[in-house]
Amino acid sequence: MDESEIPKYWFNIQAVMPNKPLPILNPATREPLSSKDLYPIFCEACADQELNTTDEWIPIPEPVREQYAGYRCTPLVRAYELEEALGTPAHIYFKNESVSPAGSHKLNSALAQAYYAKEQGITNITTETGAGQWGGALSYAAKKFGIECAVYMVKVSYEQKPYRRSIMQTFGAAITPSPSMSTRAGKDILTVNPADNGSLGCAISEAIELAVNTPGCKYALGSVLNHVCLHQTVIGLEAEKQMAFAGEYPDIVVACFGGGSNFSGIAFPFMRHNIQDGKKTRFVAAEPLSCPKLTRGKFEYDFGDEAGLTPLLPMYTLGHTFKPASIHAGGLRYHGAGVILSQLMKDGFMEAVDISQTESFKAGVLFARTEGIIPAPESCHAIAATVREAIKCKESGEAKTILFNLSGHGFVDMAAYDQYISGNLGDISISEDDLARYISSADALNR
Amino acid sequence: MDESEIPKYWFNIQAVMPNKPLPILNPATREPLSSKDLYPIFCEACADQELNTTDEWIPIPEPVREQYAGYRCTPLVRAYELEEALGTPAHIYFKNESVSPAGSHKLNSALAQAYYAKEQGITNITTETGAGQWGGALSYAAKKFGIECAVYMVKVSYEQKPYRRSIMQTFGAAITPSPSMSTRAGKDILTVNPADNGSLGCAISEAIELAVNTPGCKYALGSVLNHVCLHQTVIGLEAEKQMAFAGEYPDIVVACFGGGSNFSGIAFPFMRHNIQDGKKTRFVAAEPLSCPKLTRGKFEYDFGDEAGLTPLLPMYTLGHTFKPASIHAGGLRYHGAGVILSQLMKDGFMEAVDISQTESFKAGVLFARTEGIIPAPESCHAIAATVREAIKCKESGEAKTILFNLSGHGFVDMAAYDQYISGNLGDISISEDDLARYISSADALNR
Repeated sequence: MDESEIPKYWFNIQAVMPNKPLPILNPATREPLSSKDLYPIFCEACADQELNTTDEWIPIPEPVREQYAGYRCTPLVRAYELEEALGTPAHIYFKNESVSPAGSHKLNSALAQAYYAKEQGITNITTETGAGQWGGALSYAAKKFGIECAVYMVKVSYEQKPYRRSIMQTFGAAITPSPSMSTRAGKDILTVNPADNGSLGCAISEAIELAVNTPGCKYALGSVLNHVCLHQTVIGLEAEKQMAFAGEYPDIVVACFGGGSNFSGIAFPFMRHNIQDGKKTRFVAAEPLSCPKLTRGKFEYDFGDEAGLTPLLPMYTLGHTFKPASIHAGGLRYHGAGVILSQLMKDGFMEAVDISQTESFKAGVLFARTEGIIPAPESCHAIAATVREAIKCKESGEAKTILFNLSGHGFVDMAAYDQYISGNLGDISISEDDLARYISSADALNR
Repeated sequence: MDESEIPKYWFNIQAVMPNKPLPILNPATREPLSSKDLYPIFCEACADQELNTTDEWIPIPEPVREQYAGYRCTPLVRAYELEEALGTPAHIYFKNESVSPAGSHKLNSALAQAYYAKEQGITNITTETGAGQWGGALSYAAKKFGIECAVYMVKVSYEQKPYRRSIMQTFGAAITPSPSMSTRAGKDILTVNPADNGSLGCAISEAIELAVNTPGCKYALGSVLNHVCLHQTVIGLEAEKQMAFAGEYPDIVVACFGGGSNFSGIAFPFMRHNIQDGKKTRFVAAEPLSCPKLTRGKFEYDFGDEAGLTPLLPMYTLGHTFKPASIHAGGLRYHGAGVILSQLMKDGFMEAVDISQTESFKAGVLFARTEGIIPAPESCHAIAATVREAIKCKESGEAKTILFNLSGHGFVDMAAYDQYISGNLGDISISEDDLARYISSADALNR
């Protein structure tokens, strides 16, 4: 499919959900927030999209579509050689989002957010990044729309992932290791412990503080929020047309799951047919064994960050004090699931599986050797869940059609593959006791 | 263009050259070699192609075309935003070979060589790799055709570029740091100096030794040789159709130059129209300042490797004892130019420029920020030469059409960008005295 087939609208699933998401709350007053309450932090257009539960189709601004045309439509590929290696009668398709300039699906929302910032007269945008996929995407998007980008990068990642840092710098962004002395939040932490290694929670606090206190500066987030999930629906809308072109419709849709943005992107456009047209597609979220918010978390109000600075979000959570293990799939190390996704999970529209780190890399290496693309550690989780379904098909003899999202490539994550190949990669689970202790930090907010 | 547009034939420029290349010689007898003399080392089909000066079009085997279809036709892109940033009236196009599974054009020949090996009943293929682009491509190609691949990787690269090593291992190849104890050549070096860091020359010797002494094993090379240049002509043949679709024909074709394979690929299909149809396109090879074989080398017979184990090749050379500086563009650190290319250079069909390391990265960063692709350090040289031509157009007001080959992406080379961005990258030239001393090692063979 060529550029003319790039969708002209994003699909807003909020408009068709049988049960709308619960409101997000001001933690002090427990009153529902309006989009205007979010204007000090986010661009107005994004804040409005966040709480838009009525418009099913939201136009993609033409300058964003023009940027999409640089890499979209992304390929939909039938994984014949993977099928053959597994000996499965299943038809396996993947949507290849790794071809974006930033190497992952993250750019789909980064371009939208940078465009809206520019349109509103914003000159600077700021964000946090852990693994670096989102930071890289926003750095590139900001450069494209001529605004400055400042990224707070978790200090341990800044030091351990210099390649990701260099990608952001190559795209022209200013990178600050977090915690830093540039914000009160950072100073407070460094005063107590000058050797603090940083956390995503602290980096979020620093970026929000910068945005709120700097005229002409707004904050951008790369997952979890409704407007981010909205922007990602270009993935599934394209895939729907491409599948139709191949004469197929998915029985199962699979994606890895961190905050939920790539899952939303591939799933929501198909899920609308479950909601509206009686289709029976299964939607499988693949989360890491060490961060099992959907399979073992609890649905309740919780903060989006560790420090407790955000509004209260109704979501599946492991508790905002949850300390995720240092798995290589940094993009899946988040304690909560997006608000829309949590409601859909609660209402039975999707399911979740957890995947160990070694299972994920085993699947990733098989995929590399058959389909020729080295997947990001996050995407390896989706592949592993797909392999499980394909093997079930082999056992049952059913030729199901499985579609998964290849969210990104792994060229900058080869150290992780090296560890796996050399047999030095372990699995990390979480005990019932630790889980209960973390979740109690959210329970306390729901009494 | 879709798969059906993938060329069905490679273009063999040897058949139309006004002056055929001089013969390659047995160094002991000084007699011209026949393709049969090459059978102990190379697959027979490749050896035959090496010395084929009569067939203008050579069919691409269907299984190779099927593998090409996994990533070809590669995109031809007009670099509008680069043009705008330079303020040039020139039309700049690039052919994007970085989209191949191995991340560079190298796969175009690796697939062909692995296929011919398989067809001949070969079970094992071996090669050397420095920077790792070629080793990665051959690892992947061997996996696709179900043969084993053993790569001798220069020890210093093995240790300094673990990501490239991991890519090859992920694709299933066995990697040995060279010098190794697995060959006589390696043992001899390690006996003298157990801490030897290795060289491309030694790695070539080890791979050839393994191929010659192992039943069912052949050697493969990633550049320089005629059959490798032949396989790369798919690049230019596609580009010719794509340019015509855009209503353009290049005034200038640019590519970086190591041994000459990506240059041949983009240039030869257009050069045939200079030879046959009176076109006046200029062909510009961009070589590094520190390895200036075309701009400052000498045309004479020389060995292809440092140790002097190969046949004598008539080529532009810096002398086979040349020790290239440790620039990041590892793929351009070769002392000689391919035989066909050397003859074409001698006959005035192409020209060359040398580019400093900092000029190359400056151009690469500009390209990343405008076109969104982080180029390989090798490709940065082509971009820098393109920028020079585009600036000349700005000065003269001419709207020339420039086409360059983006041979690969730089995701695995971010350490080099980091060094450039942090201001720690230097330039390396070579003195007249050193040059004369190196070239004398070739002179000695031509008396």
